[in-house]
Amino acid sequence: MDATEPGLDGYGRDIYASAKGDVDEATIERLRGVSVATAWSVLNKAGILHPCMAGVTPLSGPEGFPLVGRARTLRYLPLREDLLPLLRTAGHANPQRQLFELVGSGDVVVIDAMGQTEAGTLGDILATRLKARNVAGIVTDGCVRDAPFIKRMGIPVFTKSVHPGANTSALLPFEFDGPVQCGGVTVLPGDIILGDEDGVVVIPAHLAAKVADDGLEQERLEGFLRMQVENGESLRDAYPPGPRLREAYEAWCRENPRT
Amino acid sequence: MDATEPGLDGYGRDIYASAKGDVDEATIERLRGVSVATAWSVLNKAGILHPCMAGVTPLSGPEGFPLVGRARTLRYLPLREDLLPLLRTAGHANPQRQLFELVGSGDVVVIDAMGQTEAGTLGDILATRLKARNVAGIVTDGCVRDAPFIKRMGIPVFTKSVHPGANTSALLPFEFDGPVQCGGVTVLPGDIILGDEDGVVVIPAHLAAKVADDGLEQERLEGFLRMQVENGESLRDAYPPGPRLREAYEAWCRENPRT
Amino acid sequence: MDATEPGLDGYGRDIYASAKGDVDEATIERLRGVSVATAWSVLNKAGILHPCMAGVTPLSGPEGFPLVGRARTLRYLPLREDLLPLLRTAGHANPQRQLFELVGSGDVVVIDAMGQTEAGTLGDILATRLKARNVAGIVTDGCVRDAPFIKRMGIPVFTKSVHPGANTSALLPFEFDGPVQCGGVTVLPGDIILGDEDGVVVIPAHLAAKVADDGLEQERLEGFLRMQVENGESLRDAYPPGPRLREAYEAWCRENPRT
Amino acid sequence: MDATEPGLDGYGRDIYASAKGDVDEATIERLRGVSVATAWSVLNKAGILHPCMAGVTPLSGPEGFPLVGRARTLRYLPLREDLLPLLRTAGHANPQRQLFELVGSGDVVVIDAMGQTEAGTLGDILATRLKARNVAGIVTDGCVRDAPFIKRMGIPVFTKSVHPGANTSALLPFEFDGPVQCGGVTVLPGDIILGDEDGVVVIPAHLAAKVADDGLEQERLEGFLRMQVENGESLRDAYPPGPRLREAYEAWCRENPRT
Amino acid sequence: MDATEPGLDGYGRDIYASAKGDVDEATIERLRGVSVATAWSVLNKAGILHPCMAGVTPLSGPEGFPLVGRARTLRYLPLREDLLPLLRTAGHANPQRQLFELVGSGDVVVIDAMGQTEAGTLGDILATRLKARNVAGIVTDGCVRDAPFIKRMGIPVFTKSVHPGANTSALLPFEFDGPVQCGGVTVLPGDIILGDEDGVVVIPAHLAAKVADDGLEQERLEGFLRMQVENGESLRDAYPPGPRLREAYEAWCRENPRT
Amino acid sequence: MDATEPGLDGYGRDIYASAKGDVDEATIERLRGVSVATAWSVLNKAGILHPCMAGVTPLSGPEGFPLVGRARTLRYLPLREDLLPLLRTAGHANPQRQLFELVGSGDVVVIDAMGQTEAGTLGDILATRLKARNVAGIVTDGCVRDAPFIKRMGIPVFTKSVHPGANTSALLPFEFDGPVQCGGVTVLPGDIILGDEDGVVVIPAHLAAKVADDGLEQERLEGFLRMQVENGESLRDAYPPGPRLREAYEAWCRENPRT
Repeated sequence: MDATEPGLDGYGRDIYASAKGDVDEATIERLRGVSVATAWSVLNKAGILHPCMAGVTPLSGPEGFPLVGRARTLRYLPLREDLLPLLRTAGHANPQRQLFELVGSGDVVVIDAMGQTEAGTLGDILATRLKARNVAGIVTDGCVRDAPFIKRMGIPVFTKSVHPGANTSALLPFEFDGPVQCGGVTVLPGDIILGDEDGVVVIPAHLAAKVADDGLEQERLEGFLRMQVENGESLRDAYPPGPRLREAYEAWCRENPRT
Repeated sequence: MDATEPGLDGYGRDIYASAKGDVDEATIERLRGVSVATAWSVLNKAGILHPCMAGVTPLSGPEGFPLVGRARTLRYLPLREDLLPLLRTAGHANPQRQLFELVGSGDVVVIDAMGQTEAGTLGDILATRLKARNVAGIVTDGCVRDAPFIKRMGIPVFTKSVHPGANTSALLPFEFDGPVQCGGVTVLPGDIILGDEDGVVVIPAHLAAKVADDGLEQERLEGFLRMQVENGESLRDAYPPGPRLREAYEAWCRENPRT
Repeated sequence: MDATEPGLDGYGRDIYASAKGDVDEATIERLRGVSVATAWSVLNKAGILHPCMAGVTPLSGPEGFPLVGRARTLRYLPLREDLLPLLRTAGHANPQRQLFELVGSGDVVVIDAMGQTEAGTLGDILATRLKARNVAGIVTDGCVRDAPFIKRMGIPVFTKSVHPGANTSALLPFEFDGPVQCGGVTVLPGDIILGDEDGVVVIPAHLAAKVADDGLEQERLEGFLRMQVENGESLRDAYPPGPRLREAYEAWCRENPRT
Repeated sequence: MDATEPGLDGYGRDIYASAKGDVDEATIERLRGVSVATAWSVLNKAGILHPCMAGVTPLSGPEGFPLVGRARTLRYLPLREDLLPLLRTAGHANPQRQLFELVGSGDVVVIDAMGQTEAGTLGDILATRLKARNVAGIVTDGCVRDAPFIKRMGIPVFTKSVHPGANTSALLPFEFDGPVQCGGVTVLPGDIILGDEDGVVVIPAHLAAKVADDGLEQERLEGFLRMQVENGESLRDAYPPGPRLREAYEAWCRENPRT
Repeated sequence: MDATEPGLDGYGRDIYASAKGDVDEATIERLRGVSVATAWSVLNKAGILHPCMAGVTPLSGPEGFPLVGRARTLRYLPLREDLLPLLRTAGHANPQRQLFELVGSGDVVVIDAMGQTEAGTLGDILATRLKARNVAGIVTDGCVRDAPFIKRMGIPVFTKSVHPGANTSALLPFEFDGPVQCGGVTVLPGDIILGDEDGVVVIPAHLAAKVADDGLEQERLEGFLRMQVENGESLRDAYPPGPRLREAYEAWCRENPRT
Repeated sequence: MDATEPGLDGYGRDIYASAKGDVDEATIERLRGVSVATAWSVLNKAGILHPCMAGVTPLSGPEGFPLVGRARTLRYLPLREDLLPLLRTAGHANPQRQLFELVGSGDVVVIDAMGQTEAGTLGDILATRLKARNVAGIVTDGCVRDAPFIKRMGIPVFTKSVHPGANTSALLPFEFDGPVQCGGVTVLPGDIILGDEDGVVVIPAHLAAKVADDGLEQERLEGFLRMQVENGESLRDAYPPGPRLREAYEAWCRENPRT
């Protein structure tokens, strides 16, 4: 190391530390009314151009695969066989095991598998523990194994694919609760993860309230417009709405006040 | 431009203009009885070697995803941010909006997204308008957004994938009712689009009647042969059919005349 | 040829001939209780690092897509148009046709399509014949055509994708009951093919009994541990099990003896 | 068609017509001093986020592969065998042939092959004609054939790959001098194409003067800074330059006036 | 096995046996004057639509990478660790080693690596042996290792890529002198392999004389036409040639008789 | 966080800390005599199955692209526009800038770009600074920009591709001197990076001396055997060497002692 740089700890991540956040329950609750497409639009207008994970799709979950919660992150690196003994010596200090015992209600486990699909990133017993700890869901840009079990578990799981192999056959857990990528999107711990049949978007914590506010408003307006189009209005009149429909919407809003 | 070429309008497409066609309702009706695999076989024998769109699969629709109708085309090009203001100024002259107000009963909207999957090519409100205009279906080699809505809409939709992003975040609509590619197949307006769980084939308008004729005949024969094989006939005897089964088929046809 | 190599027949495959095997019915029956993930683990411990076919997923079959049986193999090579007449002259000596009349109860037809997805490797009538001959299932790293029919046929079918095209538009059948690759895994005739929602693994014949033995034991232990985790045990205590749970498991085993 | 849309010609491209331009010779000359990386930076600051063609690299040309000129465009669609006779009947009305006789000095032929690499988009005789017409270069997101000849021809050629096949074995020329995509970037006729060992960027005509102005200034500053760094300055002092080097640069500029 | 099929040996390859051939030296010599692009055209007209290997490019060799010779084939399958001991026991019966001691002057070693790029298919010592046995070249749709050596060896080598790994880390040699695929093209032993900077085409043995005849004639005509175009003739007049140039060609041929 | 885990800092990387190492100069010097292929073999025998970076090839450097040195690592994550202002505020605390001022003689800068190729990871001025600080080379699984300059700079540079874009258009630097992946291989700071025309292998620090020892011995033996094969020995006698050549090698070693 260079003597001229005495005070540096050598980790650039500090410079982004202030972007980590903690979103309150009320905001998370309101985000349940916002679709992934609408959240994408609000984020895009706010300057986040690529909030959607590529290739990460619903594997299983309740009808519609509704997913919302706070990101808790796990970072894998490629297997290097000389490091496996260190992982085994570490026992429950294994970052994957640590994280899975720390997560709690409302957390979404986000696993950076570098898009690699040659092993599972977790299997049935670990998934069962996550369910017991009441996580909101699981997201990985890799695979899960034990799909026959996990698909029937009842919680939202989004993956790139499935693979029957154990994680350490191709991957090594390296750290948790740090910044990761997942599906080509940077995720900081505490970001909000929102998923449905359009995929998964990452909502930076400091934008969660805005996505809830603007998103709910947009859902309301678009729901109204969709009804008009179902009733025969043309795109020319309805999308974007002209003065007539804009006025009708306001009337409708007066009759159907926001809750 | 070169003074030696005074009469040219600069668009090669004219040389293919005579291949555009208009298929009558009766033929379309008969094509409902032809599977995509059988249509592929008739087209292949007619010299069309690659009529099947690559990577375009059913997203949603009625059981079996039956799709047949006339192609109405939309061509996207990649987003170029300096052109967006021109699109916005254009308003309802936006080629996508124009097309979606012009399509009608029995049309299939075919969207050339260049196979790009980083944005939706349409969302719930536009899809609702297409349904209101009674289109036969939607086909894109890109994505749709608002999948949670579109998947429950009830009309056949074939896509490469889904994405929550708005089209103009990655794509610009450029023209409609011109020749396009979709899934690596050239589509001329008026071609017949046929889809089921095997995917989507493009039937050139001038071959539609032949596909209906030969296809229905082939479906009839293969249905008969399948019954024989279900009853224990070997491939050696049944596929292709030998004299005994050929004769049995003729007898069966006499008892079960074509309708 | 070189005069110094008089006794060689020129086929290297002979050197692997002793690895071909025949697994008895009882072992196959026991393998029905082993998941693909568990079989993968036993194989991995036995030194087979990549037993899982890449990109080969369930197309259709009974709930959970249970597949187990002996591999009968078909090898395709890319179409070469000058060879088609020889195939046609061959008639029922066509290797695909030969194989499909030879397979029987408990066989899994494994088709090496070189991962190519531009044609089907079989269609409805051939699949019907395979069902009539009571095969245990069909696996291909290419496509099937006539998916609308095959998906409703009731037997387990694992593929890379679907395509409406006939096999000889892109592929030529070359031999059967020889060694092949499928999904990047070498398959010898007589190997055991095991499939479920995690995909497909190839179990070398000489390892089938071991996979049944160790796999059933592992399923039993993991089922017990999963129950403990469902009841609130932590990973620290349960996975791997500490002395308390190890003892509880032994007690449970005494009460629930292996059958 | 819908009676409510009487005045529409059905081609959305008109809405972008005003973006087509004609850049003067002096600007093109000045762009010879701007690298692709620097042009990319100026374009990026001007809001064009993706001006660089993906996968299009230098095949051959003079040392450094310098390429600058006005786009003349050719659009291919996938081969459809039923359309080939129309192309043959068209003879020299073939859009490819028309374009290649119209291009002239300073033009860059830009070929939209949809990224398809299963045939050449031109071969030795056509390339020879382009050279005889004095084009500035050739760019395609497909292949060229006759690479043994074209690589020794002496003009800049940028391609995705090479292939020995004739264009009409996989592609049909459809139009020329219309808008196309190439390497995922929209190109309008008259745009400036700039290439070097970093690849190819598309400069919208209306931004060409700005890229020349800002680009030359940036090249000048960066050349100065690179010298300082070669002489031992740290990034901290030199990139971006602090007051001392900013001042030194101004002094240097006074001694080395812009030409 | 089925008692009803007593005479079958179970290898479909026999049905194509008559397509294997042996091309005489004079024809091979004449093929040295035919480019890959021209051979492609003759083959295409003869109905072989895809004679060109995908992704197989020149790694090294003399200027222009001229390659012509008879195919001697090696087939790899994916590594299966349980089979490695059998290979080791086999020693020099290893199919790769057998083939490499059998090849001779004018042979082209064609290696089917299934397009896999995770290991070399041969390295420096084996390549040195092939050179000592005077092979015409080496073609693989996988990798070679020891590229620093092989690139300086002086014989034409065409590969998909390079990799430092030994073959048996990912591949097992299975047989030689049988039919294989390479780069997606079927190769029978005795076929002619032709390579240059356009890539590699496979010429079925029975078409070699035709490719030499028609190819040389086409090279001659195209060389003449290229000269005309270099001298300013338009495509309209020269490609295809009109009556004037057709006549000039004939005159030129009388003055420059075929040798 | 969970009160039951008081002593954990939440970074799994600690468990691998003991694997970081510092290799002495003499060992690095000896590794200059070992090829990438030979190092791969020694590592493979030592149980490191995948030491070679995928898709990372020489862009430029001295003849043969010899590269050896100690890894200094930079980790990128995908751009997130809301984090850019924090990076700009950080100024020279930017992890990339910090690292590039800390590296020194014999270091190899290893950049984890997640395999992403939509921006450069460094350009000419930064590369110039690295050269001024006397680094041994640069390795990235992304791109560099300013290739026209960097290719003429004279130091070994290994990349996946080139791109004219600035890093922060698609990437954010996150940390340095931590564990990363590059080309699918885990790299710890202090590991030895070895590159040549076969690509790049990562040598764990604790294995460097072994790779030097065994590698030099293997190079010596293989060089001898290659000479024998050049002189006409068969693979049967020479590879592996039989008793006669084994003895000749020992005689040769006595005459050509290791230096």
